[in-house]
Amino acid sequence: MTDGVEPALGVGMVGYSFMGAAHSQAWRTVGRVFDLPLTPVMTALCGRNGTEVTAAAARLGWASVETDWKELIRRDDVNLVDICTPGHTHCEIAVAALEAGKHVLCEKPLANSVNEAMVMTAAAESARASGVLSMVGFNYRRAPAVTLAHKLVAEGRLGIVRHVRATYLQDWIVDPEFPLVWRLDKALAGSGALGDIGAHIVDLAQYVVSDRLNGVCAVTETFVKERPLSDVSSGLSGSVGTVPARGTVTVDDAALFLGRFAEGALASFEATRFATGRKNAMRIEVNGSEGSLWFDLEALNELWYYDGTENTETAGFRRILVTEPTHPYLEAWWPPGHILGYEHTFVHETRDLVHSIAEGTDPAPSFADGLQVQRVLAAVERSAGDGSQWTSVEEHA
Amino acid sequence: MTDGVEPALGVGMVGYSFMGAAHSQAWRTVGRVFDLPLTPVMTALCGRNGTEVTAAAARLGWASVETDWKELIRRDDVNLVDICTPGHTHCEIAVAALEAGKHVLCEKPLANSVNEAMVMTAAAESARASGVLSMVGFNYRRAPAVTLAHKLVAEGRLGIVRHVRATYLQDWIVDPEFPLVWRLDKALAGSGALGDIGAHIVDLAQYVVSDRLNGVCAVTETFVKERPLSDVSSGLSGSVGTVPARGTVTVDDAALFLGRFAEGALASFEATRFATGRKNAMRIEVNGSEGSLWFDLEALNELWYYDGTENTETAGFRRILVTEPTHPYLEAWWPPGHILGYEHTFVHETRDLVHSIAEGTDPAPSFADGLQVQRVLAAVERSAGDGSQWTSVEEHA
Amino acid sequence: MTDGVEPALGVGMVGYSFMGAAHSQAWRTVGRVFDLPLTPVMTALCGRNGTEVTAAAARLGWASVETDWKELIRRDDVNLVDICTPGHTHCEIAVAALEAGKHVLCEKPLANSVNEAMVMTAAAESARASGVLSMVGFNYRRAPAVTLAHKLVAEGRLGIVRHVRATYLQDWIVDPEFPLVWRLDKALAGSGALGDIGAHIVDLAQYVVSDRLNGVCAVTETFVKERPLSDVSSGLSGSVGTVPARGTVTVDDAALFLGRFAEGALASFEATRFATGRKNAMRIEVNGSEGSLWFDLEALNELWYYDGTENTETAGFRRILVTEPTHPYLEAWWPPGHILGYEHTFVHETRDLVHSIAEGTDPAPSFADGLQVQRVLAAVERSAGDGSQWTSVEEHA
Amino acid sequence: MTDGVEPALGVGMVGYSFMGAAHSQAWRTVGRVFDLPLTPVMTALCGRNGTEVTAAAARLGWASVETDWKELIRRDDVNLVDICTPGHTHCEIAVAALEAGKHVLCEKPLANSVNEAMVMTAAAESARASGVLSMVGFNYRRAPAVTLAHKLVAEGRLGIVRHVRATYLQDWIVDPEFPLVWRLDKALAGSGALGDIGAHIVDLAQYVVSDRLNGVCAVTETFVKERPLSDVSSGLSGSVGTVPARGTVTVDDAALFLGRFAEGALASFEATRFATGRKNAMRIEVNGSEGSLWFDLEALNELWYYDGTENTETAGFRRILVTEPTHPYLEAWWPPGHILGYEHTFVHETRDLVHSIAEGTDPAPSFADGLQVQRVLAAVERSAGDGSQWTSVEEHA
Repeated sequence: MTDGVEPALGVGMVGYSFMGAAHSQAWRTVGRVFDLPLTPVMTALCGRNGTEVTAAAARLGWASVETDWKELIRRDDVNLVDICTPGHTHCEIAVAALEAGKHVLCEKPLANSVNEAMVMTAAAESARASGVLSMVGFNYRRAPAVTLAHKLVAEGRLGIVRHVRATYLQDWIVDPEFPLVWRLDKALAGSGALGDIGAHIVDLAQYVVSDRLNGVCAVTETFVKERPLSDVSSGLSGSVGTVPARGTVTVDDAALFLGRFAEGALASFEATRFATGRKNAMRIEVNGSEGSLWFDLEALNELWYYDGTENTETAGFRRILVTEPTHPYLEAWWPPGHILGYEHTFVHETRDLVHSIAEGTDPAPSFADGLQVQRVLAAVERSAGDGSQWTSVEEHA
Repeated sequence: MTDGVEPALGVGMVGYSFMGAAHSQAWRTVGRVFDLPLTPVMTALCGRNGTEVTAAAARLGWASVETDWKELIRRDDVNLVDICTPGHTHCEIAVAALEAGKHVLCEKPLANSVNEAMVMTAAAESARASGVLSMVGFNYRRAPAVTLAHKLVAEGRLGIVRHVRATYLQDWIVDPEFPLVWRLDKALAGSGALGDIGAHIVDLAQYVVSDRLNGVCAVTETFVKERPLSDVSSGLSGSVGTVPARGTVTVDDAALFLGRFAEGALASFEATRFATGRKNAMRIEVNGSEGSLWFDLEALNELWYYDGTENTETAGFRRILVTEPTHPYLEAWWPPGHILGYEHTFVHETRDLVHSIAEGTDPAPSFADGLQVQRVLAAVERSAGDGSQWTSVEEHA
Repeated sequence: MTDGVEPALGVGMVGYSFMGAAHSQAWRTVGRVFDLPLTPVMTALCGRNGTEVTAAAARLGWASVETDWKELIRRDDVNLVDICTPGHTHCEIAVAALEAGKHVLCEKPLANSVNEAMVMTAAAESARASGVLSMVGFNYRRAPAVTLAHKLVAEGRLGIVRHVRATYLQDWIVDPEFPLVWRLDKALAGSGALGDIGAHIVDLAQYVVSDRLNGVCAVTETFVKERPLSDVSSGLSGSVGTVPARGTVTVDDAALFLGRFAEGALASFEATRFATGRKNAMRIEVNGSEGSLWFDLEALNELWYYDGTENTETAGFRRILVTEPTHPYLEAWWPPGHILGYEHTFVHETRDLVHSIAEGTDPAPSFADGLQVQRVLAAVERSAGDGSQWTSVEEHA
Repeated sequence: MTDGVEPALGVGMVGYSFMGAAHSQAWRTVGRVFDLPLTPVMTALCGRNGTEVTAAAARLGWASVETDWKELIRRDDVNLVDICTPGHTHCEIAVAALEAGKHVLCEKPLANSVNEAMVMTAAAESARASGVLSMVGFNYRRAPAVTLAHKLVAEGRLGIVRHVRATYLQDWIVDPEFPLVWRLDKALAGSGALGDIGAHIVDLAQYVVSDRLNGVCAVTETFVKERPLSDVSSGLSGSVGTVPARGTVTVDDAALFLGRFAEGALASFEATRFATGRKNAMRIEVNGSEGSLWFDLEALNELWYYDGTENTETAGFRRILVTEPTHPYLEAWWPPGHILGYEHTFVHETRDLVHSIAEGTDPAPSFADGLQVQRVLAAVERSAGDGSQWTSVEEHA
């Protein structure tokens, strides 16, 4: 564990809504639980509204505030910029921060377009030359069960991967009276279920099987095309007393696509906000020639694994409770069977990033990984807009 | 229950392999458990090999044998012909039987092509005019939990249906040394996973939501392209001592497709024989604006239902153990909690068919329903062969 | 499979209610599915009411009827007497049948008292000398998952057994207006939940771990002490239009007890008819020094097994879907993943009994096994009536 | 959320092993997530070894250290003493702290004996008169699903409670070579599985059903009677390189008991460290005349509830994912479906305690509640030592 003697790593964070709260919890906790080579310091929180950001900083544990992210980037006591704002702002902030020599942790999706993601990736590669690192926040890679799933596939325990099926099912906008929040506005959010939760399962799938999608066919749908207008500044929850005026939903409610991985596996993806009763059901199943596994985020401490090489008399999907000291990230936590929660994925993300910075290694997922996800999402949108026809994931567009 | 005074219904069955054994169990049992308006009599079993069919008839409980299905059809004591042979023979037998005035129960898929299915449907409609009935054997409609699912959707308990996702996952040919049985030969089986198990989930989905698919985009794959030759007369199991010669697999190992229902729901389907560890995992989930449900054939006595109109404090997917006397088909069976098995779906199928015949009502699924499934499968094959582009399910081709 | 050439085994059954229907289904099916050395013939059904037994015989498939079990026993064409009547009649019928040289299959519990069970066991041992066999109907031993559980323990896969916990939870008399059926009358049923379902879990536990309980401490309770009178001839279901008169419930609603096995394992048992929402929840978990397993009758095709010798990285309880051809009884049934139901346990019971009779081996569970269960139940009642103090299971009383 | 303007509440904690780390995480987090009327300040950490406690304070976030708990109690900046030491030290520290006018949070079990617990309870009641509060740390009451379970029962949703069955199964000392740590030494730990995890399920059961056990019968067992000696200062994990000498295990490995609640429900309890494969399986099921519920700590975000008043057609145990804003404690956390972990139970415990202190209300569970649990444990030990005979839980001993 960290004893306070390690050099400090000043963190400046932009945004303090849902993701900001989650990242704050991670920064507050990581050095208390893990033995880190650098001591993260919660130096400054940045938001446009001075009053609000000051209150948020006090609540979340940040030592100071900024109201202009450009000021944040200029501060000498900030070594790492953590970007938790909506997607349309990622590119500008990240590129500026990298150019200013700050390491960057950027929430997913990396950007709202492939072009922005390309610019960011170029900036990241450029900065890398001078030792400045960057990482995109696909936090679910750091659920211990997911990390273990990746490890088992990488070790060949599943043999040749034949099938990947991933779904991310939520139901928070099933009600047609749920208001038109910013996540339903294409200008701010880039896309709907596709970019918000579809991005997660694309990264998850590619990470778990260590392969990349090279083509897709897709359909998308907006089931409820108009919704009550509301203050679009809020995130996941609607405001009280909405006005009767309605606006047009400009993003997808659901996106379904089939894909092929470079090494031949077939894949199926579904991201939707209309799956009544499914709250945060991010699931993945992988079938290989020698075994299978599946995972469900609503039970994030469990990995289900089938060893196809066992005698059929006792073969079966086994529920691995991923809480043993031998499991990824677990030696720092509680005894076996004492489960972790959603927020721990962020603690693990910051742990790994701090190690990379201290050791000069490349953190993953990189901006290039984030760009590749963006290219898959773009291919999905192109296919959906073009009669579902098979669409390559461009490698060099 | 049947007391033996009811008029007899002479049954003649063609084929006595896997499906033949399952249908025999149904015919032996149905009148012992349910109170039927006609008494099924297991009159004759038909197969090409006289020795084998005689042994099979003794074992399975049939009173006599025929070695030519045309003879079977001619018999006055046969009122119903039950067709349990491979798909490429269905059309000829069914049409002849209908023309001879025999009721027909035909195993799924209805045929190996849309054209054959159209011929059969026309014959069925023709025969209907003279009171001769026909039914296609999508037996899973008669799992009590599936029947209940259909009922709940039909009653509006789920509101507007938004999503259907159905998979049928098996793993019996994961081993590349599994031989080239008839189910892997396009000439006999028509298609692979698509027609065998994909047909089941298409019918299941359409039945549960009482709607029809009107378009699809698809991919199919044959992962193992050559396999050891073997006696292709057997069904699901490979023969011992296979010769080293190899032949080409001419059907799909897996088929994935996305679809849209006429009333707007999106759907996802996957049928594969390469899902290691999944033995008979036919699953369906339906999400509607007011509720959801899901079912898994490996736990066929359970239906999971989410009532979206409940208070969120106590809302949750509930496991309905579909074994209450108030549940479909259950009043004739055991007390609550005493579960039924796979073969009971066939008992229920024959029960319903006998009632239809006695009462002169139209049994479901009809040949027209079977044809519609065939059209969906054909659209899947066309889309998969044409860059996955969106393909309409033809209504009048 | 049976080809009809094997010698016949004439079966005469007494009783045709719930158990009679289940046994009939077994006798009708067993020779159609399994390859048997003798051909069971459903010779005669016996019941006191001639009209009713005639109707039942027609419905259930019995060739003739008797209205006096003594006549049944005298028939030369009856080789095996299958006793499906309430417990207070078992002793007289079984002893008479054995003395008449008939093999006996007697439903559980073996008797309503230890004394009766001792008489029956003595008769069985006596008859054994002249090749007459007997078996008590603890059918759950023949759920394939239970048979597999027994096998795994017997092979030492669990190491030293430390804990057994078994519950049998039902809820069919939670409603205080449920009438006073015969199962709630001590004179007919012997005891309540204890003898009816507690007997099952005692036999199950002893069978799975191949050991015997040698002491218990216990509590029992009758929650609803008076109930509406009704025709007590019916079994599990109450009659319509009950009269207002009430009678006293003379059996236990629930029985809980702790026990020790001869080889040192601790055990916990609970049998109740007051577990709202639990329909037929017979469950057992066994923990040993090297592994564990558990089973739930409501999911009777599954066995959950934990191999404690595995690497902790991938250790976990695995769900074995006990439907492989290599699993007990399964080679005669359907392909993997096609599940069996409650009634199949009786088919397997008759299969094994027929083999024992043909081969002259001792069927299990024997009457001595049934007697031992009875002794455990008696010890439970003594302990419950005597301040829960530790009470030995008598071996020679 | 807390804005820092609220008055401070100085916390001094004794002990920094497993429980100390968990409580530290709670104190660091509670004011960042919940809106508190007092601001907890992590004033001082106390431990006997100055070097170790200094390192622990730095790691865990405490502002200063003490090496004598008596000094800690004297400090003016400490308002609350949080006792995380082994059970044999609780009484002395707690009584002294209360007498010094400090609020006390004491880890469970309250003490190692009824006598100590009585002394503590008297001290707590005495201190209460001058506004000094005390609480015992049965943290699992604060798992949101458990709080919800309590609420449903209290609202009468289950009707008359008939059955409670609770187990706490672990497997960390199955290996006979696991060393003789302090938790296996009666002088330090008081008892084994009984006091450590049995205490949890007694409190849990009494809390969930709002009733008290008034009698028990019990058996206990020490399966492995000698173990390698080791440094007994460590907690749950054995030390490396144990010496070959062995010592006697003086506590129980497993404790099983049956009980009756004051209002008539029957209960079954089992606490063991020998349940191979069970890591932290604290489970409870409650059956009432109108409904049932169950909970498993290994899936701590789920509550399963059966509403017995529903139509049987759709009745079933429902999995409530207890992550809605309307659920206990959840409005301060993440969106629905984003699960919490083990440590959150401590955050909620400190939240409620801070509110009680600020508002002058009595926190629960009180020392009197802890004493009552101790009396149950004592009755269990007496019964186990006296032939399992029924033993009253003394109310005034």
